Amino acid sequence: MPSMSKNLKYLTAREVFARNLKKLRMARGLSQEALAEEAGLHRTYVGSIERGERNISIDNIERLANAFGLAPSKLLENENSR
Amino acid sequence: MPSMSKNLKYLTAREVFARNLKKLRMARGLSQEALAEEAGLHRTYVGSIERGERNISIDNIERLANAFGLAPSKLLENENSR
Repeated sequence: MPSMSKNLKYLTAREVFARNLKKLRMARGLSQEALAEEAGLHRTYVGSIERGERNISIDNIERLANAFGLAPSKLLENENSR
Repeated sequence: MPSMSKNLKYLTAREVFARNLKKLRMARGLSQEALAEEAGLHRTYVGSIERGERNISIDNIERLANAFGLAPSKLLENENSR
């Protein structure tokens, strides 16, 4: 379906994670600072992750997933490719 | 179900990833060296990831997922908690 093609472009794992993180954070009404506090990370670090600037590690993926009460795999799921 | 309790212990994201990686690699009949080559990583690095010794980054999670032709989220899925 050509009309959907812009939603089906290849996203890197970083981009998928960044998008999921921001979406979840906003859905919960959390500031970057509040999420960072909950996950034991720095506010500016959360911001840079949401911009896809940092190569986040699996331990920090887990910290953020725990802050949301979700499985780490959920934060890596690409909604457009399921 | 008490008889399943040993399968339901909490596994860290590293442990889940390590287990999935090894299981997939062996299911495909690949050596650590062959997988490392395919993913553009070092053989000893793949070994240390399978032992849960390294805090792997999202970019390297993606390299390994690509080597298997799977979504990165798949390598983080905990079979025991779905």
